[in-house]
Amino acid sequence: MANSQVRLGILGLGTVGQALIALIDEQHGTILERTGIDLIVTKAAVRDVNKPREVDIAAGSLTADGMEVVESEYVDMVVELVGGIEPTKTYVERALELGKPVVTANKELLAAHGAELFTAAADGIETSLLFEAAVAGGIPLMRALEQSLRGEPLQRVMGIVNGTTNYILSQMSDHGASYADALAEADPTADVDGHDAAAKAAIIATVGFGGSVTSSQVAVEGISNITADDIGAARSMGYAIKLLAIVEHVGQPGDLEVAVRVHPAMVPLTHPLASVRDSFNAVFIEGGAVGELMLYGRGAGGRPTGSAVLGDVIEAAVGFVSGRAHARPSVAPAQVRPLADLRSAFYVEVKVTDQPGVLATVAGVFGSNNVSIKSMEQRGSDADARLLFITHEASEGDLAATLTKLAELEDVHDIGIPLRVIGH
Amino acid sequence: MANSQVRLGILGLGTVGQALIALIDEQHGTILERTGIDLIVTKAAVRDVNKPREVDIAAGSLTADGMEVVESEYVDMVVELVGGIEPTKTYVERALELGKPVVTANKELLAAHGAELFTAAADGIETSLLFEAAVAGGIPLMRALEQSLRGEPLQRVMGIVNGTTNYILSQMSDHGASYADALAEADPTADVDGHDAAAKAAIIATVGFGGSVTSSQVAVEGISNITADDIGAARSMGYAIKLLAIVEHVGQPGDLEVAVRVHPAMVPLTHPLASVRDSFNAVFIEGGAVGELMLYGRGAGGRPTGSAVLGDVIEAAVGFVSGRAHARPSVAPAQVRPLADLRSAFYVEVKVTDQPGVLATVAGVFGSNNVSIKSMEQRGSDADARLLFITHEASEGDLAATLTKLAELEDVHDIGIPLRVIGH
Repeated sequence: MANSQVRLGILGLGTVGQALIALIDEQHGTILERTGIDLIVTKAAVRDVNKPREVDIAAGSLTADGMEVVESEYVDMVVELVGGIEPTKTYVERALELGKPVVTANKELLAAHGAELFTAAADGIETSLLFEAAVAGGIPLMRALEQSLRGEPLQRVMGIVNGTTNYILSQMSDHGASYADALAEADPTADVDGHDAAAKAAIIATVGFGGSVTSSQVAVEGISNITADDIGAARSMGYAIKLLAIVEHVGQPGDLEVAVRVHPAMVPLTHPLASVRDSFNAVFIEGGAVGELMLYGRGAGGRPTGSAVLGDVIEAAVGFVSGRAHARPSVAPAQVRPLADLRSAFYVEVKVTDQPGVLATVAGVFGSNNVSIKSMEQRGSDADARLLFITHEASEGDLAATLTKLAELEDVHDIGIPLRVIGH
Repeated sequence: MANSQVRLGILGLGTVGQALIALIDEQHGTILERTGIDLIVTKAAVRDVNKPREVDIAAGSLTADGMEVVESEYVDMVVELVGGIEPTKTYVERALELGKPVVTANKELLAAHGAELFTAAADGIETSLLFEAAVAGGIPLMRALEQSLRGEPLQRVMGIVNGTTNYILSQMSDHGASYADALAEADPTADVDGHDAAAKAAIIATVGFGGSVTSSQVAVEGISNITADDIGAARSMGYAIKLLAIVEHVGQPGDLEVAVRVHPAMVPLTHPLASVRDSFNAVFIEGGAVGELMLYGRGAGGRPTGSAVLGDVIEAAVGFVSGRAHARPSVAPAQVRPLADLRSAFYVEVKVTDQPGVLATVAGVFGSNNVSIKSMEQRGSDADARLLFITHEASEGDLAATLTKLAELEDVHDIGIPLRVIGH
């Protein structure tokens, strides 16, 4: 196989961009030997061209103008590591229009405009658009969903896809830290409100389930209401609390109907997701044929993310040289089932007056709202009496109605935020 | 995208072949919609054409002659699910020669003749040869190694890749079964001697580390010597015993030197591989950039394996229709470092006479053979005294010399089979 030079233009030289350049330096010989691709970085766009940098790139290759990189005649392929929706969307579209493959790690952009960009990539000159690093960093999830599982009747994908929130929950669980302490220790820009995970859920849905979903369609609940007490109570009942992005196929086989949500959930300690600690990510896939599959690894960090970007760069470069782009069908919008129509098992904590007959009254409210109780235990007594319920699967709507009715009871003092419970 | 029919010929209609046909039936519409490929099974080779079958295939499509399937003008692509080296190798080579893509789940064939077949596939008419199902069943390991991690400086891959032995060890560990009882419960054809895992290790080395390795080059030790006592002792020290296939890059970066071995190992209970139970498989990947990555799932079974075969069939079919084969470079033989030159930490159990000075003598033998002791504890006393050692990393050669010398000591009654210990 004859060697071919492929010239990269990089938008953004932050942690990932610098790691990518270092990796290309280290692995240049190996990549050349295995693929015949001679990768070189010819241009990069940065905010401040005068800032001192440790990466090995000629000062003359730097520019503050992203479009200059995209349109440069010395750039065959564009790696977009800036993030955000504009001006990156304009850059990505222009590159595709020029027939230049694009590799991006930009979850916001894909979660908002993925389907549009897939079509742009397939339009006219067929050009690869790859984004393995956008979801779960170094974990090869996109390739698994898009290639390996293309024929699989996927049922559900549940992921721990935000390292910061998993770190916070791990600190609270393993070291008894309070939410405030764990948060202070973590990156303050962390997406504790769940929006980072929601963008990733939208991408997983679009790539894995055959219909496009945008981040605004994802039902989201963050972790800021989770207390050390919740985590302790969950653990004593055999559960860990994890922030999960959940994408499910609902409705009939072949339908493009999905449910997509992000929320804290109680996961049995025996479930593989329960032991995913610190800032690790993991994605648990349930399919009608493949059964249970889990991918685990580093969801962020310069070198893990750089590794995923490099895998894409090599695929796109091999495709570019041989005129064979990564083929991806256009995706129509998926039908997204509203949260209120979904079913889950729930954990509910009810603070009550500790006297005869209260349990029967409270249990009666669950029953009359179609919520069946799986287990109940009382903790504390007198003024501190708490009833901990785990329900069988019930609709979100019925559970909400139950909570409204419970709040009206005189003997009920307080009701905790309900937590969804993931089955074994 | 215009639809294109792709006609499959299947060699072997056992569990996986039947699951594949059922899956193609179920997923035909989805696959057509997402890829434009209209998959049909036109011919299949079986041992006995008259045996009643539940699969949906016309009786006239069956033949006892594998070559008839391969050469049929109604077959565009061959799926090989027979196993073994001959006559399958002849069939696979003939199919590739005819420009027909081949999908196979045949680990023996690939472990013995992989490099040769890669070259045959790339030769003349470039044709895909895909084999995701050959290692770790439904787990998308081959695609991860070959695509996602193509630019990754891989350091080590450790896998639980034989479900039967993992089931036996899990039964012994979780339910206190004896080896004999656990074995009796499991599939009697199970590869307790480690040879099944060795074939998979050879394929992992060839695909992931850039140089070809055959199964005969893999150092192998099975699990038949592992006792319930070993498992109990390991657990009390914080370890699980797992049969691991281990492929490591050794020597300088860029060198094609690897170490490839299969043996039982003590894995810390906190390591993700330790909690892989029953017949599940898992592969733990350590890379210089990606860090730690683990893929977990079903390593066998008709539908999980059928799912992996179907993923390959779709990729090969898309490539066939567009004239774009899966590109794979030819691989030169790797240099395989002999087992004696490898280093590990070891667990060694020594039965001794319980009297003053014995520990010092025994410890002295370790030291004078360059084996440094990390921890020691005594269990039992008098006639039943046992010294349990865990060493720091030492060469296999030095450890063997230590054991020889220990056996010569009068106060040493017995020495257990040493177990390698995997670090955290």
